[in-house]
Amino acid sequence: MIENPYYSPEMHGPYELFSLGDFVLEEGYTLRDCQLAYATFGELSPAKDNAILVTTWYSGTHQIFADAYIGSEHALDPEKYFIVVINQIGNGLSSSPHNTEGPHAMARFPHVRIGDDVRAQEQLLRERFGIEQLELVTGGSMGAQQTYEWAVRFPDKVKRAASIAGTAKNTPHDFIYTEALVEAITSDPAFRGGWYESSSDVRAGLARHARIWSVMGFSTEFWKQEQWRPLGFASADDFQVGFVDAYFGPMDPNDLLCMAWKWQRGDVSRHTGGDLAAALGRVTAKMFVMPIDEDMFFPVRDCAAEQELVPNSELRVVESVAGHLGLFGLDPGYMQQIDRHLGELLEAPA
Amino acid sequence: MIENPYYSPEMHGPYELFSLGDFVLEEGYTLRDCQLAYATFGELSPAKDNAILVTTWYSGTHQIFADAYIGSEHALDPEKYFIVVINQIGNGLSSSPHNTEGPHAMARFPHVRIGDDVRAQEQLLRERFGIEQLELVTGGSMGAQQTYEWAVRFPDKVKRAASIAGTAKNTPHDFIYTEALVEAITSDPAFRGGWYESSSDVRAGLARHARIWSVMGFSTEFWKQEQWRPLGFASADDFQVGFVDAYFGPMDPNDLLCMAWKWQRGDVSRHTGGDLAAALGRVTAKMFVMPIDEDMFFPVRDCAAEQELVPNSELRVVESVAGHLGLFGLDPGYMQQIDRHLGELLEAPA
Repeated sequence: MIENPYYSPEMHGPYELFSLGDFVLEEGYTLRDCQLAYATFGELSPAKDNAILVTTWYSGTHQIFADAYIGSEHALDPEKYFIVVINQIGNGLSSSPHNTEGPHAMARFPHVRIGDDVRAQEQLLRERFGIEQLELVTGGSMGAQQTYEWAVRFPDKVKRAASIAGTAKNTPHDFIYTEALVEAITSDPAFRGGWYESSSDVRAGLARHARIWSVMGFSTEFWKQEQWRPLGFASADDFQVGFVDAYFGPMDPNDLLCMAWKWQRGDVSRHTGGDLAAALGRVTAKMFVMPIDEDMFFPVRDCAAEQELVPNSELRVVESVAGHLGLFGLDPGYMQQIDRHLGELLEAPA
Repeated sequence: MIENPYYSPEMHGPYELFSLGDFVLEEGYTLRDCQLAYATFGELSPAKDNAILVTTWYSGTHQIFADAYIGSEHALDPEKYFIVVINQIGNGLSSSPHNTEGPHAMARFPHVRIGDDVRAQEQLLRERFGIEQLELVTGGSMGAQQTYEWAVRFPDKVKRAASIAGTAKNTPHDFIYTEALVEAITSDPAFRGGWYESSSDVRAGLARHARIWSVMGFSTEFWKQEQWRPLGFASADDFQVGFVDAYFGPMDPNDLLCMAWKWQRGDVSRHTGGDLAAALGRVTAKMFVMPIDEDMFFPVRDCAAEQELVPNSELRVVESVAGHLGLFGLDPGYMQQIDRHLGELLEAPA
C-alpha cells in the first residue's frame, strides 16, 4: 500500500467500487476483497437490453471515455445506452499493486491475465446490475484484448464487439516492445525491486518509460508534421515534457508493470490449445476490427489477419496520424470515425 | 583511452590508418592527429576513374561491406572498381572517444558532424590516392547521411550516389528514437558520465540500448514470421541474446554516443540556411534513393519525399522483411536487389 493522489476521483472523475470478494486468478493466487472501479453513464433499461461495456487500456482509466468517447453527441450515447466502463485490474483504480495491503502489496502483487479481467467484469455486470447480455463490448489497445476475450469466452453474452487498435493474440513484436517498457522502469535503481517509498522516487525510470512511448506511441508522421503544434506545444520536446512525461509521470510503477505483464500475454488461443483460428471461430458477435492506420505496434495487417478469422466481422481502418495514441482522440477527425463505425455497428442486426 | 579488443583487425578484418593531421571540427574543436581507418578492395586505375566510396553506419565498420557487399559476384566488384570503405569518426576504428588520448579522451571527445566525416573522407581520398572524382558514393543509414552530404557538398566530385535506408535531413522521429538509445546507455549508473573503467562495466546500459534496437531495428513482421529461425536461433529471445545483444555488447558506450549525436543532427540543409529543397537541388550526381520497405524509422515516404527534391534521381525501394537491419543482408533476397540497383546505377550515364 502506497499513497498516490493520482488515483483518485479528483483526478479521474467519479467512480464506484464493486467487491468481487476473494477472486482467484488464473495464475493461482487469490486477491482478497478484489475491487473493480467502474463508472456508469445512462440508465439500464428495465429489460436490461441496452448495456454497453467499455474496457480500459494500458495506463488508462474510465476518465478518457467520459471525456472523449461518451456523450449524447457520440455513438456511445448515454441517452440510449447504459454504458459501464470498468477499470482493468492493476490500473490503479481497481485493485492494483499500489493500493493493495497484505501479502500481495506492491512488488508481490500476483500476475493477472486478460481472462481474469473479463471474468471479473462479467461477475460485476451480473451481480451488480443483473446484466446477462451486452449490446456491445468495446475498448482500445489492452481494451481490445479484453474485447476479444469477452467475445471468445462468453459468446452468448456479447451481441456486438469492436476492438480498436489491438489484437486477440499479442504479437511477438509487441512483447518485445513491452519488455523495453518494463526494463525502462525496473532498471531504475530507485525502483528497488518494486519496494520504493514513493512512486516519484522512480521518476527516472518513469521518464525513460515515457520516452519509449514517444518513439512508438505516435507515428513517424506525427512528429514530422509537428502535430504537437495544434495540441498547444512549442516544440517536440515541449510536447514530450508537457504531455507524454506528464501523463505517465504520476503513475505507479508496479501498477504499470502489472498491466504490462498482462498485455504481453493476451491471447484468446489459450482457450483452444493455441489454435487462434479455432478461438476466433467461436465468436458469434457481430464484430468490427478497427486498427489505426498509423499504429506502429498494432499495424493494420496484424489486425486484419485476425479479423479474417472472425466469422461475422468487418475490418474498419481508422485514420489517425497520431498513431496508436490517436486513441486519446488527439486528431480532430478521429472521434468522428469512431462514432461512425460504432454507430453503424450498434445499428447492425446481431 | 581505454582498451577494447573489439576494435581490432582480428575482429573487423585488415584496415589501414590515414592521419588527417590536426582536423578542425565544425563544432570548433581540433582533433590532433585524427585518424581514419579504411579498407580498400581492387586496384585504382591509372586514370583514377574507377573509385567507389562506401561509408559506414551507426555501429558499423568496413567489415560488413567486406563480408556481404563487396566481391566479384556483387555490383561492388573489386575486379572493376577501386572500392574504399572509410570508417566514420567515432566508430571505434577511426578516431573515437575510446581510442583517443589527451584532452579529448572518452567523455570529452568533441561532437562530430556528418560534414566533418565527409570533409575528412575527401581529404583521405585526395591526399592518399589522388582521387578527385568518385564513380559512386554509397552507404546505408548514417552512411546514407554521408552519401547525401557528399552529393550536396562536393557535387563535382560525385558522379553517382546511392543512399540506402537513410535520409538527407534527419527526421524528428529519428531524433527521438536516437535519444532513447542515448538515454539507455547514459542512465546506467556504471556509465559514470562516460568515465567507466571498462566498456563491459556498462553492460546493463548496452543491453538496454540493444533491446531498443530490437524494437525498432527489425520490422513487426520479422518477429511475427519468426525470421530469426532461418538465422539459426531457437526463439525470439535466443536471437536477441545471441545476435542483437551480442552485436552491441562489446562496443564502447562513448563511441556509440558520438555516432548517435552525429546521426541526430545529420542535415544537408545546413548548407542552405535550412532550405532542404535548395540543398538537394545542388546534387548533380545520378542518384538512387533506396529505402527499405519495412524500415520502422526511415520509412519509404520520408525517403521518397527527399528523392523528389534530387534532380537526377530515382526511388528504388528495397524489400526486406528484416526492416532497417536488413542492411546486414539478413534476407536471402536483399543483396540481389542491392546488386541490381547499384549495378544499374553504375551502368547509367553520369
